[in-house]
Amino acid sequence: TVNGQALWHDLTTTAAFGGTAKGGICRLALSDEDFQVRAWFEQTCKAFGCTVTYDSMGNQFARRAGLQNDLPPIMMGSHLDTQVTGGRFDGILGVLGGIAVLRALHDAGIHTRHPVEVVNWTNEEGARFSPPMLASGVFGGAFTEEFAGSRTDATGITLRQELERGGFVGEEHCGQHPAAAYFELHIEQGPVLEAKGCTIGVVTGVQGMRWHEVVVRGRSAHAGTTPMPMRKDALLVAARMIDQVNAVAQAFAPDGLSTIGIITAFPASSNVVPREVRFTVDLRNPSEAALQGMEEDFLRRMQECAQAADVEVSIMPTWNSPAVHFDKRCVACVRESGKELNYSVQDIVSGAGHDAVYVSRVVPTAMIFVPCWQGISHNEAESATQEDATAGSNVILHAVLMADQE
Amino acid sequence: TVNGQALWHDLTTTAAFGGTAKGGICRLALSDEDFQVRAWFEQTCKAFGCTVTYDSMGNQFARRAGLQNDLPPIMMGSHLDTQVTGGRFDGILGVLGGIAVLRALHDAGIHTRHPVEVVNWTNEEGARFSPPMLASGVFGGAFTEEFAGSRTDATGITLRQELERGGFVGEEHCGQHPAAAYFELHIEQGPVLEAKGCTIGVVTGVQGMRWHEVVVRGRSAHAGTTPMPMRKDALLVAARMIDQVNAVAQAFAPDGLSTIGIITAFPASSNVVPREVRFTVDLRNPSEAALQGMEEDFLRRMQECAQAADVEVSIMPTWNSPAVHFDKRCVACVRESGKELNYSVQDIVSGAGHDAVYVSRVVPTAMIFVPCWQGISHNEAESATQEDATAGSNVILHAVLMADQE
Ligand SMILES: NC(=O)NCCC(=O)O
Ligand SMILES: NC(=O)NCCC(=O)O
Repeated sequence: TVNGQALWHDLTTTAAFGGTAKGGICRLALSDEDFQVRAWFEQTCKAFGCTVTYDSMGNQFARRAGLQNDLPPIMMGSHLDTQVTGGRFDGILGVLGGIAVLRALHDAGIHTRHPVEVVNWTNEEGARFSPPMLASGVFGGAFTEEFAGSRTDATGITLRQELERGGFVGEEHCGQHPAAAYFELHIEQGPVLEAKGCTIGVVTGVQGMRWHEVVVRGRSAHAGTTPMPMRKDALLVAARMIDQVNAVAQAFAPDGLSTIGIITAFPASSNVVPREVRFTVDLRNPSEAALQGMEEDFLRRMQECAQAADVEVSIMPTWNSPAVHFDKRCVACVRESGKELNYSVQDIVSGAGHDAVYVSRVVPTAMIFVPCWQGISHNEAESATQEDATAGSNVILHAVLMADQE
Repeated sequence: TVNGQALWHDLTTTAAFGGTAKGGICRLALSDEDFQVRAWFEQTCKAFGCTVTYDSMGNQFARRAGLQNDLPPIMMGSHLDTQVTGGRFDGILGVLGGIAVLRALHDAGIHTRHPVEVVNWTNEEGARFSPPMLASGVFGGAFTEEFAGSRTDATGITLRQELERGGFVGEEHCGQHPAAAYFELHIEQGPVLEAKGCTIGVVTGVQGMRWHEVVVRGRSAHAGTTPMPMRKDALLVAARMIDQVNAVAQAFAPDGLSTIGIITAFPASSNVVPREVRFTVDLRNPSEAALQGMEEDFLRRMQECAQAADVEVSIMPTWNSPAVHFDKRCVACVRESGKELNYSVQDIVSGAGHDAVYVSRVVPTAMIFVPCWQGISHNEAESATQEDATAGSNVILHAVLMADQE
C-alpha cells in the first residue's frame, strides 16, 4: 500500500503553487505557477530514480524502469493545471497518486516487468486554452499539434509560445509514446459516491460533451431615448436564450446537463442597449443519442428566441467529445483491485472530461474515482479526505501490478 | 444666420479624431483622441479672436468678448467625448453649433453686450468614467471635485490622472464661472421630431434617470458533474432578472425605459457554473413619481428572482439624476427664435441626460433639439442632415442674441 501521509504532504506542498486566499488554486496551464509545479514534479520523480522527459506538447513523463524495458510502459497520471478558481484535487490527485505509487514501488523495492510511468498532461482544464484535454487530445489523435499549439488565451498568447517560454517542447513527437495501459485516479467531482457512502468509483466511461459559441446580434441604441418597442436588445434576447439553454437540460432530465460559463456584451456601456452578446454553451449527456437530441433542441430554441425578437443569431460548434467506454480489461483490473483491498466499490460514468477520454483512443484505459466533499468541484472549496485519496492510490497501485502480470 | 457649409466642414474635420471604420467615432473622454479634438477646439476658437481657458475639471471655455465685459457671459456648448461605438453628432453638434455662432458673429462683425462663450464639458458620456455628465455635474454642484476626480476607468486610471496627463487642470475652480444663460444644441437621439417632420425641438426639460449595479452571488460548480437541481447558477438567475428589468419598463409603458448595458460573469470558464454576475441597470421616466414606482418595482422583482433561486443579490444605487424643468425664459427664447426663423417647432422632453441638466442648477438654461436619422444614437450609424444642423445653430444664434437684449 501507498504512504498516505507522504501523499497528503505532496498535496499540501503543490497547493502552494498558485494557492489562493480561499484555500483553492489558480494555476492556469503554462502560467508561471504551472512552471513551478512542473519543476517540483520533475525533481520529486527523479528522487525515486525516474527519468523525466517531455513530448512536443509539453506532456511530462516520469519513467521508472522495469525488468523488461522493451515492454511498453504502464502509465498513470492526470493534470496539474487548474481552473481560475480551482480546487486542490481536480487533476492533481491523479498525478500525485501516481507519484505515491512510484514511492511505494521504490520503498518496497518492487520491480515491475513493464516500466511504470506517471504523466502530467498539459492544459487539461481548458480554462486558459480552449478546448479542454488539449494535449492528451493530441496524444490520442483527436487534435493536430498545429491546432493545439495555435490556441490562444484571452490575451492572445498561443499555447505554443508558452510551451517555448517554459522550455517544455520535448523531442518526442506527441502521440509517439507507446503504452500498455493507462490508469487515471480522480476525484469524482460529483455527489454520487459520497451520497452512497462508497469509497471507490469504477469508472466505466465518460459522458458525451458538446460545446458551442452563440453570437446574438441586435442593434446598439441610446438607453434614454429609444422606445422599448424600437429596440433590438441583444442582451435581452441572450437572457431569454440562457433560460432556454437551461430548459434543454430540464427537458432531458435527469441526465442532461447544460451550462453557460462565459458571457460578454458589447459595447458594454451603461447607457447603451447592447449590440452584440456572445456566450458559451456546454451540453452533456451520457447517451450520445440523447446528446444529439439535446443539441437539436438547443439549436431550435435559439432560433425561436432570435426570430421572436427579430435579431440575428449564429451558433458555432467549438468542441465535441463523444461518450467514451473504457477498456473492459482495465476496468476489471480497477474493480478487482478495489474489491481485493476491501473497499466499497461501485461502477460510475464520469460527468467530467478527463485526459483518459483521449488517451483511451490509443491506449487501454480505465479510471478510478474517489468521493469529494458535497460533489463540489471547479470551486476553491473543493475537498477530499486523506483516507479516500490514499484508498484511490492503493487501487491504482494494485491495478498497475495486476496489469503488469497480463 | 450661420454658415452651414463651414459647420458641416467642422463636423467632418473633427470626426477624424477617433473616427471608426464604420463611420462613427470612438473618442473616450480624455483619451489621446479627445486630446486631439480639444487642441482643434482651442485653435479654431482662437481664430475667431476668442480666449480659451480651462477650469479645474478640464472644461474648456472659448470666450468672445462683449461690449460690457463685466456682464456674465451667455454660454453655448455640449461635449466632444463619445461612446465606444459612438456617432458623429451626439454632443459634437452642440459644441460645433456654438462655434458656428461665434463664426457668424465674427463674420458679421456683431458685438454683443454680454461676452459669448462656447463650452466643451469633460466626460459627458460616462462611457469611460461613470456616471455621465461628470464635469458639468461638478459645475452645477451635483458632484464634488474629489468624487469626480477619483472616478476610474475599466483599467483603474482616474479622471484626475488623465486631466493632468493632458495638462487640462485650469486655475479656475470648477463652478466659479458665472453665466447669464446657457443654450445647448443637441440631436434628439430619439425618433419623435423625425416622425413628426419637425425641425426644431424646444426642450422643456429632461426625464429622470437612476442607475443601479446588481451583484448576484451563486456558487461555482463543475458543468459536467453538478446535477441541475444542485446548482446555484448566478448567470441563470441574472438572465431571469434581465427579463424582469425589461418587464419593469413594460409595466410603466410607454414612458418607462429600462436598460442593461454591462454584464460580467465570474469566473468566466466554459465548464464552470458562474459564481457571480454583475450588471448595470438604467431606469428612466419623465415623471419622478413614476420613476420612483419603477425603482420600487425593480427592487421587488430582483428580490423575487433571488429568493426563487436561493441566491444572494445586492443592489447599489450608482446615479440619480432627477427630472429637470428648464428655465421658462430661456425656453421661450428658443421657441421664439425657432418661430421667427420659420422652422417647424415643437415642445419635447429629453430622454437623454445632457450637460444642461446640471448646468441648469446654477445657470438659466434651455436646449434645442434637431432630428436624427431614425432616432438612432449611441451607435456608429447616428446621422443628421446639414440642413437640420444649420437650423439648430441658427436657433441658438437667435436665442443668444435675444438673451443678450434682456
Ligand atoms: N476534470 C475536469 O474538470 N476536466 C475539465 C473538462 C470538463 O469540462 O469536463
Ligand atoms: N446625451 C447623452 O447621450 N448623454 C449621456 C447620458 C445619458 O445616458 O443620457
